[in-house]
Amino acid sequence: MTEFNYIGKVYSEFKTIENMPIQGAGISNGNGYIKIFDKYLDGLKDLEGFSHCYVIFHLHEIKGYSLHLKPFLDNELRGVFATRSPKRPNAIGLSIVKIDSVENNRIILNEIDILDGTPILDIKPYITPFDEIISEKNGWYEKGMNPKKVLSDGRFK
Amino acid sequence: MTEFNYIGKVYSEFKTIENMPIQGAGISNGNGYIKIFDKYLDGLKDLEGFSHCYVIFHLHEIKGYSLHLKPFLDNELRGVFATRSPKRPNAIGLSIVKIDSVENNRIILNEIDILDGTPILDIKPYITPFDEIISEKNGWYEKGMNPKKVLSDGRFK
Repeated sequence: MTEFNYIGKVYSEFKTIENMPIQGAGISNGNGYIKIFDKYLDGLKDLEGFSHCYVIFHLHEIKGYSLHLKPFLDNELRGVFATRSPKRPNAIGLSIVKIDSVENNRIILNEIDILDGTPILDIKPYITPFDEIISEKNGWYEKGMNPKKVLSDGRFK
Repeated sequence: MTEFNYIGKVYSEFKTIENMPIQGAGISNGNGYIKIFDKYLDGLKDLEGFSHCYVIFHLHEIKGYSLHLKPFLDNELRGVFATRSPKRPNAIGLSIVKIDSVENNRIILNEIDILDGTPILDIKPYITPFDEIISEKNGWYEKGMNPKKVLSDGRFK
């Protein structure tokens, strides 16, 4: 077991878990920003040089977890570690979002899929040569539904 | 502040922080496996259908953090949130690794860059249409060094 401190908070247009986009960059049209706590402000230097970043956050509204569940884009039960579903043993979320600008302690974001009020654990730059992987197999997702047309519902509340 | 439980542990050929590859998939030739604790075993169902996964882990050997630091691939001080350096406000690591197979409670991995003994927080599938982002700007990294030729050193101990 280990403890982490929040480094900031999300401000977004998504006020409830239902009807949210189910992924960030390339899928969502959502806007918002992350406000980084003053203590960590200096760590934002140079971030604006990147067009995208990873946001690692606490899925703070999620209670409990299931080892088998139906992801939003499928109708079969899948192992939780083969899905992005939020009801996980550790309620840790990972999104890739588009950076519009960095203004003082705010990272202004496009293509965001994160609930308003979400506490932030870490920000890391998306670096194309590290992160653009040639993936041969996309598992159950290959016969899945169009993620731009599917919104979240209440199944993971 | 929030608490997370470890879900498993890394077994790799990298026994010290020095001389490790500085990224995973596409960069590292390292091999190893993740052993998932029995309690969470059922969550591995369907993971083998994916060629790559994200591993979110606790950088458990890292003490303290710096808001400005020199990443392995650069000689200038950068804001920590614009780098992948381990000395972060929350010692959370993120790697993309290649899945060789899943055998009972073990995920056998290639292209791994994770220290032996590292506690695991989460596993998520790499899903190409979500994660292969068209990134226009890669910040300081664009004039950086070749990540295949640079190994870690002791700077973040």
